[in-house]
Amino acid sequence: MLVIMKEQAAAADLQRIVDRVEGAGGTAECHRPCETVIVVNGCPPSLEDEIRALAGVASVRRQTTGLWLVSRERQPQDTVVEVMGRRIGGPNPPAVIAGPCAVESEDQLFQIAEQVQKAGAGLLRGGAYKPRTSPYSFQGLGERGLELLARVRERFGIPIVTELRDVSALDLLLVYDVDVIQVGARSMQNFEILKEVGKAGKPVLLKRGASNSIDEWLNAAEYIMLEGNPQVILCERGVVSAKHSKTRYLLDIAAVPIVQELSHLPVVIDPSHAAGDRRWVPPMARAAVAAGANGLLIEVHHAAELALCDGPQSISPETLRQLIQDLKRRGYIREPIAVPDENVVRLATVVH
Amino acid sequence: MLVIMKEQAAAADLQRIVDRVEGAGGTAECHRPCETVIVVNGCPPSLEDEIRALAGVASVRRQTTGLWLVSRERQPQDTVVEVMGRRIGGPNPPAVIAGPCAVESEDQLFQIAEQVQKAGAGLLRGGAYKPRTSPYSFQGLGERGLELLARVRERFGIPIVTELRDVSALDLLLVYDVDVIQVGARSMQNFEILKEVGKAGKPVLLKRGASNSIDEWLNAAEYIMLEGNPQVILCERGVVSAKHSKTRYLLDIAAVPIVQELSHLPVVIDPSHAAGDRRWVPPMARAAVAAGANGLLIEVHHAAELALCDGPQSISPETLRQLIQDLKRRGYIREPIAVPDENVVRLATVVH
Amino acid sequence: MLVIMKEQAAAADLQRIVDRVEGAGGTAECHRPCETVIVVNGCPPSLEDEIRALAGVASVRRQTTGLWLVSRERQPQDTVVEVMGRRIGGPNPPAVIAGPCAVESEDQLFQIAEQVQKAGAGLLRGGAYKPRTSPYSFQGLGERGLELLARVRERFGIPIVTELRDVSALDLLLVYDVDVIQVGARSMQNFEILKEVGKAGKPVLLKRGASNSIDEWLNAAEYIMLEGNPQVILCERGVVSAKHSKTRYLLDIAAVPIVQELSHLPVVIDPSHAAGDRRWVPPMARAAVAAGANGLLIEVHHAAELALCDGPQSISPETLRQLIQDLKRRGYIREPIAVPDENVVRLATVVH
Amino acid sequence: MLVIMKEQAAAADLQRIVDRVEGAGGTAECHRPCETVIVVNGCPPSLEDEIRALAGVASVRRQTTGLWLVSRERQPQDTVVEVMGRRIGGPNPPAVIAGPCAVESEDQLFQIAEQVQKAGAGLLRGGAYKPRTSPYSFQGLGERGLELLARVRERFGIPIVTELRDVSALDLLLVYDVDVIQVGARSMQNFEILKEVGKAGKPVLLKRGASNSIDEWLNAAEYIMLEGNPQVILCERGVVSAKHSKTRYLLDIAAVPIVQELSHLPVVIDPSHAAGDRRWVPPMARAAVAAGANGLLIEVHHAAELALCDGPQSISPETLRQLIQDLKRRGYIREPIAVPDENVVRLATVVH
Repeated sequence: MLVIMKEQAAAADLQRIVDRVEGAGGTAECHRPCETVIVVNGCPPSLEDEIRALAGVASVRRQTTGLWLVSRERQPQDTVVEVMGRRIGGPNPPAVIAGPCAVESEDQLFQIAEQVQKAGAGLLRGGAYKPRTSPYSFQGLGERGLELLARVRERFGIPIVTELRDVSALDLLLVYDVDVIQVGARSMQNFEILKEVGKAGKPVLLKRGASNSIDEWLNAAEYIMLEGNPQVILCERGVVSAKHSKTRYLLDIAAVPIVQELSHLPVVIDPSHAAGDRRWVPPMARAAVAAGANGLLIEVHHAAELALCDGPQSISPETLRQLIQDLKRRGYIREPIAVPDENVVRLATVVH
Repeated sequence: MLVIMKEQAAAADLQRIVDRVEGAGGTAECHRPCETVIVVNGCPPSLEDEIRALAGVASVRRQTTGLWLVSRERQPQDTVVEVMGRRIGGPNPPAVIAGPCAVESEDQLFQIAEQVQKAGAGLLRGGAYKPRTSPYSFQGLGERGLELLARVRERFGIPIVTELRDVSALDLLLVYDVDVIQVGARSMQNFEILKEVGKAGKPVLLKRGASNSIDEWLNAAEYIMLEGNPQVILCERGVVSAKHSKTRYLLDIAAVPIVQELSHLPVVIDPSHAAGDRRWVPPMARAAVAAGANGLLIEVHHAAELALCDGPQSISPETLRQLIQDLKRRGYIREPIAVPDENVVRLATVVH
Repeated sequence: MLVIMKEQAAAADLQRIVDRVEGAGGTAECHRPCETVIVVNGCPPSLEDEIRALAGVASVRRQTTGLWLVSRERQPQDTVVEVMGRRIGGPNPPAVIAGPCAVESEDQLFQIAEQVQKAGAGLLRGGAYKPRTSPYSFQGLGERGLELLARVRERFGIPIVTELRDVSALDLLLVYDVDVIQVGARSMQNFEILKEVGKAGKPVLLKRGASNSIDEWLNAAEYIMLEGNPQVILCERGVVSAKHSKTRYLLDIAAVPIVQELSHLPVVIDPSHAAGDRRWVPPMARAAVAAGANGLLIEVHHAAELALCDGPQSISPETLRQLIQDLKRRGYIREPIAVPDENVVRLATVVH
Repeated sequence: MLVIMKEQAAAADLQRIVDRVEGAGGTAECHRPCETVIVVNGCPPSLEDEIRALAGVASVRRQTTGLWLVSRERQPQDTVVEVMGRRIGGPNPPAVIAGPCAVESEDQLFQIAEQVQKAGAGLLRGGAYKPRTSPYSFQGLGERGLELLARVRERFGIPIVTELRDVSALDLLLVYDVDVIQVGARSMQNFEILKEVGKAGKPVLLKRGASNSIDEWLNAAEYIMLEGNPQVILCERGVVSAKHSKTRYLLDIAAVPIVQELSHLPVVIDPSHAAGDRRWVPPMARAAVAAGANGLLIEVHHAAELALCDGPQSISPETLRQLIQDLKRRGYIREPIAVPDENVVRLATVVH
């Protein structure tokens, strides 16, 4: 059961509910993400009506879908996440996040950053910690990668997006003040990571797991928001495909309208991992934008044949430039929209 | 082994090959779809070089992928299929084929035809014979449906697309002179149907089976072309999806660029069956066109809540109109391109 | 709507229903598979109660699942299909149907038949008409294959199972009097084939399509039974698998108990096509029997490296012998059970 | 690149390799799981031959599959894991691990423990930390659950298996000295967890992720072994299934022989999560054992309708008893085999 409190609820109102629940043998856990929410477990359903009638209670929800904070029902207007002046979500033109799979060296990162920025990308992606199937594969440069990302941001004024693979690395990501923390597809149900990035006060790019449903994905976002972080960007990157597919994963293009129906959070598409082959990335990216995606996450490498990971699916900066040109020509990318300030999500007001 | 003959090969050249193959214990079967092709089986591979050297032989191919007639290798330029003046494929704007799942009555068909034509559709779809999971479901109006389709064409001057469910109904489809014969997803490997529509001299819309690979799909088109019919339009309609998907099937959007790379045949997208829900049809349709599809196949019903089949995934004529308007505004749908006549595939020259 | 008539219903009772339905604008089609069944479409649901009250009506069913004839609800006791004295289904030990993918030559067929019979197989499988992805692959020996099958049966006294690929070949299968007609996975929803084998008066082995649900599979069996043929054996052969699988298909082992719960028809397992590799066939076959399968369909070749099709997944006669020995040692294969004669399905009483 | 050192390699031999690699701009990381292994990255492939020739080097392997420590190539004989006298793997009869999804209360746990032990189970499963899709679902009793598990072990002398959901809980699992640490399907590629349980000195039950290939699963085991822990038990629990399946996941029964071919590690089957419905658990369990599984992991609850999680797929203690009886009657479960002591994996000799 989920008990949502009124804004003006008093501390005594909360205590009364906790006492009642514990008296009935259940557990009650308070969260204050945006409004105050009490998670109740282990109680007889009959308690529901009684709690609903208590002072300070706004509403009581059964845990049917598990979705509350991320739902359109709670927040009808679109969430807009702002990162160094770039606005993602709502009526804004699709954001382009581009860059290498992994940060490999200063030279590589600076060259790519310069070229993707010229091509029109608004944010730079690059992994310092790479989750790899084999313990014997290149695992990323670690802290050295973070250092390079921070320096490239200083040089080009472009915000940086990087993945948190292990909870233990979170402190370092915060030390280097990364702009967006990526939660990878394999970590979508790493609940420890979800809770920690929920407390970290940074925008989060949450990838959908390759075999996870849209409901499971939105529930993962709910874990993050419940810890007080409303700045969540969802990212579809293809789902497990059957043997009949030539692409590495099957891009679930319908996830864009479906997510936008169920949730106020922005949703971006990663065509690179879905395709697994650079030849198909531009048409899949165009399809994503036409379907209404709030952005693109694209792997770009200036010398893909030498890339330490994901070379075959990395497009060149020139291909990125042409793609963005085409999106402009079709009217998909225009000047950013002036969004009323109250719709932009920032963390200032979060109490925890 | 596939033996492709030179255009000027003499009858005696063919006979020589057949004799040699049969002498070696194999079988040789001649086809004359566009050029003369001899299918050889049961021979030792060592015969390959010997045959290649015989008079009249253009080339000899191993059956690795099974693809020859449909391949870009054989025909680099795009196939353009012409149906009552509508051109599908190549540089032409995407064709819109719209209409009800099943022909239900005169009133229903005429109303929908009028409205989809006004909305901008170029061809009318409608099933007279419906393949149904259960023997107890509505199986279509049969011949009465064909009759109505022929009348609606006469009235509105719009070409008609209808499905051939059983080989036994082919004669009737030809009597009513349907403009495009649809081979449904469940029949994609109904080899008897493939061979018969290959001989029928009518454009064929070949749907991809829900669990079939792109290679299997192109091989099915190869069966049709081998019988002498070059007018094949491929149609992607979603592949089997895992439990994690909210849509009925997963639209394989990447199939568009992949097919266009491997084959010269036009490829259209059916977002209706992929979605299974009308709310997601327009964004999926826009995505398909942005990815480069040569057309759309969309279920439209003027009173979807009363439809005898596929009501939930049928959009209204008004939604179709808005979709086509959007495609025009983005520059995807323009005036038809003047295609050089030699690129347009007609059946006049087929020898069988 | 499905109207099931009482056994003693008179012709006038039927006529009365047909008249009422047609008067209400619907269609009524009579079938007499076991009992008399009238398929009604296009009627208002309100007619249901009225028809239920008419003379001669046993019951009326909505078309929710489409299942009636195949359901346990209609027939609680197991169907036992008898083929030349071999009994398949019910409490009988699992039947072993073994043999080559394709009939290739007299020598090949006779050698394999002798060896699988010695190994303990009760029926011989062998394809005369092979459904092949490519038109350029070996398509089977056709009538010559049927002739060889008939001769091998005469020689060894073993019943033969062979696939009907095209409706046009059915007459030949009947001329050669094959014992069991196989409907392949690709033809599971070839409704023309289903109806024709439903009229053919021969036991049918109905394979599940690679992407079909258990409900769709049982509906396909319903099509066959509705034409008057109660001798249906279901065959699970693996479903479409995701890229994560090493086997060609994923064997849906749970299909055995699920089918046995929903239907009275026997269900056998084909581990060969599911595995796609002979090394995994014996453990998958043992698993199938332990799960309660009524039989096994196994590809066996005496010289698999030379097989014209499916060589890699064919086991040797010696491996088959060891498998059957193991099943005997574990007590799975015992002497056939004496089934009361009234449970054995024969076609004598079918009126059509 | 993976450099495997000879047993008698000196510290100077290691240093020489590290120096050479770093001099060439690469990274070298030493591990001593069983033998000494150096993981090399970022080096030109040309270095391979040079390193192979250095003193102390046993062999050099390219990272093609990523598998070394878990492979049959390195260790031909089966690994046998011993837990409080129960031996899992090799020629031993299948181990039965049974118990509730989650530890709910003292009464619940003690009742189930007593009954599954009487039914013949050798180990007790029970979750104290439950990974849940929704943050609002019951998350397990936490430390209280571990305490109850420790007490039930003391009372009944049965070893306990419990899941590590978060790295932060590992210390507590070790304080309560759980006998087997389970890594759940969602955590299969939580590399932080894999490394930590690799250092923890306890047998690990590693579940396969629902969309992970067998290779990815074995690589996850490689991560654990590389940290010095050879006591890994693999557990197949079903893979993502398409909409055509009635079970929650599709049990990949062929994973049993495939894993046993590639690796020396024991592999057990969890039919409960694969089925998602208790009716199908016993036939799937019998199938698993017949396919050669080294054990079963089964959810059992004495009052499933009241279970806080996974009630619908939990069988009763009585059903477990009948299942084990059937496995004994078929000869699958016999007296434990006397395994030569040198085959049993313990951690005494691990140097880290």
